[in-house]
Amino acid sequence: MASITGSSAAFSAAEPPTILYIGQHETQRTEPVNANLLRRAQSVGYDILTAPVTTSNFQSRVLALLQAHVDVNAAPTADSVAFPIISPLTPEDSDLVPEDSNSSLIAVTSPWIDIGSTDPLIAHISQQIFSLEIAYAAFCGISNILVHGPISAQGTVRFARSVLKALGLGPYVQIHILLPMTGELEQDISADGTHLAELARPQFCPEDDVDDDVGPEVYGSWETWNTIRTMCLYSTKLSVALEVPRIMPTLDLQSRWYSEPVRLLLLPRTTFLRNSKGYPVLSKQHQQFATLLLRLRFPPWALLGDIGQIPSGEADDAEPTPAEAMAAAREPPEDTTKHLQYLRHLQQSQPSRPPIERFGQGYQDYMQSPLQPLTDNLESITYEVFEKDPVKYEWYERAVALALEDLRTKLGDGKDIVVAVAGAGRGPLVTRILQASRKTGVSVKVYAVEKNPNAHVLLQRRNAIDSLWAGQVTVVKSDMRTWLGPATTDGEVGKVDILVSELLGSFADNELSPECLDGVQHVLHPDHGINIPQSYSAHLTPLATPRLHSDLLSRTSSDISMSVSEKWELPYVVMLHQYDYLSTIPATLEETRTPDVQQAWAFSHPAPPSLLAHASNRAGGTTDAGNPMGGDGTNEHNARSCNLRFTCTNRGVCHGLAGYFETVLYSSPNARTDHRPQTVELSTNPVTMADKSKDMISWFPIFFSLKTPMYVPDGAEMEVSMWRQTDDRKVWYEWLVEVYVQIAGGKRMKVGMSDLHSSRRNGCLM
Amino acid sequence: MASITGSSAAFSAAEPPTILYIGQHETQRTEPVNANLLRRAQSVGYDILTAPVTTSNFQSRVLALLQAHVDVNAAPTADSVAFPIISPLTPEDSDLVPEDSNSSLIAVTSPWIDIGSTDPLIAHISQQIFSLEIAYAAFCGISNILVHGPISAQGTVRFARSVLKALGLGPYVQIHILLPMTGELEQDISADGTHLAELARPQFCPEDDVDDDVGPEVYGSWETWNTIRTMCLYSTKLSVALEVPRIMPTLDLQSRWYSEPVRLLLLPRTTFLRNSKGYPVLSKQHQQFATLLLRLRFPPWALLGDIGQIPSGEADDAEPTPAEAMAAAREPPEDTTKHLQYLRHLQQSQPSRPPIERFGQGYQDYMQSPLQPLTDNLESITYEVFEKDPVKYEWYERAVALALEDLRTKLGDGKDIVVAVAGAGRGPLVTRILQASRKTGVSVKVYAVEKNPNAHVLLQRRNAIDSLWAGQVTVVKSDMRTWLGPATTDGEVGKVDILVSELLGSFADNELSPECLDGVQHVLHPDHGINIPQSYSAHLTPLATPRLHSDLLSRTSSDISMSVSEKWELPYVVMLHQYDYLSTIPATLEETRTPDVQQAWAFSHPAPPSLLAHASNRAGGTTDAGNPMGGDGTNEHNARSCNLRFTCTNRGVCHGLAGYFETVLYSSPNARTDHRPQTVELSTNPVTMADKSKDMISWFPIFFSLKTPMYVPDGAEMEVSMWRQTDDRKVWYEWLVEVYVQIAGGKRMKVGMSDLHSSRRNGCLM
Repeated sequence: MASITGSSAAFSAAEPPTILYIGQHETQRTEPVNANLLRRAQSVGYDILTAPVTTSNFQSRVLALLQAHVDVNAAPTADSVAFPIISPLTPEDSDLVPEDSNSSLIAVTSPWIDIGSTDPLIAHISQQIFSLEIAYAAFCGISNILVHGPISAQGTVRFARSVLKALGLGPYVQIHILLPMTGELEQDISADGTHLAELARPQFCPEDDVDDDVGPEVYGSWETWNTIRTMCLYSTKLSVALEVPRIMPTLDLQSRWYSEPVRLLLLPRTTFLRNSKGYPVLSKQHQQFATLLLRLRFPPWALLGDIGQIPSGEADDAEPTPAEAMAAAREPPEDTTKHLQYLRHLQQSQPSRPPIERFGQGYQDYMQSPLQPLTDNLESITYEVFEKDPVKYEWYERAVALALEDLRTKLGDGKDIVVAVAGAGRGPLVTRILQASRKTGVSVKVYAVEKNPNAHVLLQRRNAIDSLWAGQVTVVKSDMRTWLGPATTDGEVGKVDILVSELLGSFADNELSPECLDGVQHVLHPDHGINIPQSYSAHLTPLATPRLHSDLLSRTSSDISMSVSEKWELPYVVMLHQYDYLSTIPATLEETRTPDVQQAWAFSHPAPPSLLAHASNRAGGTTDAGNPMGGDGTNEHNARSCNLRFTCTNRGVCHGLAGYFETVLYSSPNARTDHRPQTVELSTNPVTMADKSKDMISWFPIFFSLKTPMYVPDGAEMEVSMWRQTDDRKVWYEWLVEVYVQIAGGKRMKVGMSDLHSSRRNGCLM
Repeated sequence: MASITGSSAAFSAAEPPTILYIGQHETQRTEPVNANLLRRAQSVGYDILTAPVTTSNFQSRVLALLQAHVDVNAAPTADSVAFPIISPLTPEDSDLVPEDSNSSLIAVTSPWIDIGSTDPLIAHISQQIFSLEIAYAAFCGISNILVHGPISAQGTVRFARSVLKALGLGPYVQIHILLPMTGELEQDISADGTHLAELARPQFCPEDDVDDDVGPEVYGSWETWNTIRTMCLYSTKLSVALEVPRIMPTLDLQSRWYSEPVRLLLLPRTTFLRNSKGYPVLSKQHQQFATLLLRLRFPPWALLGDIGQIPSGEADDAEPTPAEAMAAAREPPEDTTKHLQYLRHLQQSQPSRPPIERFGQGYQDYMQSPLQPLTDNLESITYEVFEKDPVKYEWYERAVALALEDLRTKLGDGKDIVVAVAGAGRGPLVTRILQASRKTGVSVKVYAVEKNPNAHVLLQRRNAIDSLWAGQVTVVKSDMRTWLGPATTDGEVGKVDILVSELLGSFADNELSPECLDGVQHVLHPDHGINIPQSYSAHLTPLATPRLHSDLLSRTSSDISMSVSEKWELPYVVMLHQYDYLSTIPATLEETRTPDVQQAWAFSHPAPPSLLAHASNRAGGTTDAGNPMGGDGTNEHNARSCNLRFTCTNRGVCHGLAGYFETVLYSSPNARTDHRPQTVELSTNPVTMADKSKDMISWFPIFFSLKTPMYVPDGAEMEVSMWRQTDDRKVWYEWLVEVYVQIAGGKRMKVGMSDLHSSRRNGCLM
């Protein structure tokens, strides 16, 4: 059963346009950023400009105040001397004024402050300036504010505390923390060279050994970000302004940043190469990263950094001064819009998206509760969506064809093969069975069993008017579990030779395929009866998905019609998009990343008759006292559990588990001479999908969230325990994650454990 | 300001009786546990008995069922064969029936099952038996159920899942998990030698390397418990039945278990030594551990394990058979109540409790919100409680005496020393000042300033009738911050020479002593004025306190008149009792444990006048825009922050931070010839309290909780960041804990970070 639901869903396979807002971030700008400059920038193709909140005049004033304070208090300590207060902004302190056009500006707080400083004096002054600037920018109607990340890793916690406070300063403030992908920022942050961090008093400077502790880690910048956003409670008002370096880091680190809320992408001049014609271009690695980001539901805005001033516009019409003319003759001014033109070119020439992305456009990272097809009747539009899959039904037809041929070989030509569709819906499998029959020349008797009375009407109509169906299909209105079986010509109840169903959910068994197929197995021929699918398995891998976590955090109990804590305790069907695999298999090629997806458990059909007989005996209720945990145990053979271990090479945060499925529709014992594969499989497992059912779009993955994200250190092992639980009424899942590290001496040591999550209250009703 | 509040508080220094319930746990009992046996047991002095839920008949039945299943299914796998169902209990399967006396029984689930087994068959059978036994015990009215801990560490998560499920089986079920303090249980758990764990099929046996991973850790048993209770969400219905070994483990591990909810203490026969007379006794280490536990608010019950059958009572009157007579002659039956008599002797001879424990009886681990003395007026009973302290006021008198002598030396004899009490309450400090004056012969003029109109009445009355006061005290009804100062005889306003106050809270500055003393400093003589106290500091150490965490977890929003999440965001005053220090200083002696308590910050008085002048200038409001985060910064000189690192040698869970204070009441520059100390100090810091103010009872510690407990691995470092924040209206605290480990290669690696907690919404109003 597929995963896009609801009559409001409007899917299109058309390629959506690539949207890219481009801005300019110039740290050495020689003129104030105002409506005039913005108009000129937009006239050459920019959408936005960054604007410092305060001027160099303000910086001078602060430095003078600080100097005066230090002069007066020769040996200042936190206990004995009041710190200076920054007086309110004067008109000379800021070029900003409230203007309609300000919505196209990104305010930049002073990069020369150090709100994370260990020196209370520097921290105190910096925090005043920081608050003052954010409040003034918000007052001027600028909601996007760019803030340079912490100066040192030691200051991260203090920095984050100030950011958390600042997020409360205005309801519409969006703070973007400027961070390098790794290492240090390339773009010089201190325009006039004076940085308050350098003025910190010696006793407050971080000790060297502290610096060594955290070291220049490849993941250091990401870790800084993680600390800030964790302390800021995954606020949706906080995002990353990511500076892209000249040399792209590893795919692992790119993928990590990709999973984070990058809302601004800073491309400094130094990030560009020159092509043979001298034009600025981005490397192939940069282009690929940009393409990934541009496919996000909300792609970041690009900022070109320090690539030159905005052309002066009308001023060009004026006669150049003699000096200007001479300078122009000596060195013709470079066209400062070449970088912009290149980005617009990139925007126009983006490659096509994969089919599932086109199909699921608008559904990226949108979490839905799984269907309850046994208790709900689906709407026609839902069926229609499922039927659009270019692969799934084609593969079913192949499987049915193989099975028909095998049964003909086994049973001889004389007899119609009885094929029943359990859960026929609007009939797509019926059509495929009839096609397979026609193509193979094996004659069939088809039964379409459907419990949905509305779909049942459609099936009858189709049988009457569809030229392929041609009235030869027996439409049965019944829950498949209570269907007695095909009536034979002599009035007896016969058996089904091939039972075809499409009951799989995103996690294989999560829409109760095992329970349904057990329930209908009595109609299947006990000796040669074939189930399509024959078997299926559920697969897992741990994910970092800050986006989904933030989304769940912000859901209130009224949004979700359940208690707030319950929202963490049920699986979601979701087109996973902006995430990172925490555990990958070491690859031979630098260009590929393969997640470590492990099998949780499997089911196969038909079940051994003795098993079902035993299970059925339990339904009598004689063992009530013997099984007081609920139910009589009639479904206990469909309980499952697993305990899987995943290694996480690079530190990260686990927000949950992604679940997938694989299924063998039919595996024929007989080889074909026409090179058709003997085994027909479907898979949503990212490791095997391309081989088994490339471009299949019917299923999104499933996501099991963790209420409290778990920090996973470098090289740690995640141990995932999961259960498929059942009583006589429901099926549900329980899951738990533990984290272990190898500490010095090689000892394996637990460092964290999640709650036990259980979807029992929202379990799937049988 | 002290910490026991409310008119319902009734404190007594009397020694409460030591309560100890003693039971017998006999694994080889030869007769059924019923009302008759219980009566006999109680007649020899036992309070309770353990009783197996099911009989050996039941065990035989299960084993036969299992054997039949294995025989039928030669190669059973989880997928293909239904597991056997245990049919309901027959009368032969259990000796228990519902009886009134069952409340004195502790039911024991079958120790031969393995609910944590990796073999689905064994786990399935075990879980059925487990549920069946718990449900039947609950049905019989036995609410205390003893459950043997998991067979192997690998099974802990599965074991815990079953226990969580079982906790839901009855509203009154209390499950006690039997665990050794370390290593393996001493008492043989399998009466007839057959254990289901041994029947697990080879493919499901834990791999050897897995066993090596967790290894025989000293803290392994505690870690097992921690996993179980964490998965069971710190349920108050879950506790530990702790088996005490013959050799006591380290004090560290004892202390860890002490902090856990140990409700049963199993003392197997092997735990006892024989004294010179051949009587069973416990070692000194065992006695000390027992004494600690017996001082808990809810001490555990003791269970004597396998020390022999209950004497047969009436049967003794019958004529022994010849065989019995011969056996009795060969080896006289040991009196099986000697162990019991010894425990009753221990119970009677418990040492006295320390004064603060006597004083705070009933307040152990009871969390109160700190006082708001600036906004609330205290009731008389609250003052009365404070005034009972045997140390505090005596030390104040010593400090005042030293200060009076020093000022006489400095100012000469001619003039009365002006002493003012800021916040006089009912006048205990006034009395001490007058006594110090009499003892030193330094004449004083005393002012008692009090804002509480009710206490003001009492002060005036006391001045009129108290023979020591004798009308010489000037009682001033005023908030100390608005008091102009003492009126001199010529109608001018004079200055105070010594300003005495008792404004300290459990965390030094948390009841706004800094703000109050700043506010009254204008009355102090600028040249020689002395503040008593002169300085104070706040101190911290991380704690494991499952009890407090469980208590906070269970508080609903209606209990606490605030949102549920807020309860984690304010400090509590609490007589910490059942807790463990996570960070201790390596001790030279095995017998002592010294916590690593570190100073967070300090304050001293009087403040530099320039500082107060500067602060006062900020109150004008001219810098509003410059300080948009709230307030004008007039109190910013009283903001503080710290960043402290604590090492945790043995793995544990951090539930929060304990806070203490130290204060220098007065430090004299002049040595005394009478051996009086020059410096008079108070301390609640457990490291220095015995030296500085032993037996002081006025203050309980403060506790800063963590919303999500943090697992701290062996040897990890906890980094605690804390802030004292202030605007112009409030003072509040913020706190955050990070955990780092050294991983292989010596790299320091973060493994966890708490939320940033803030008491801003419940801050102390200025």
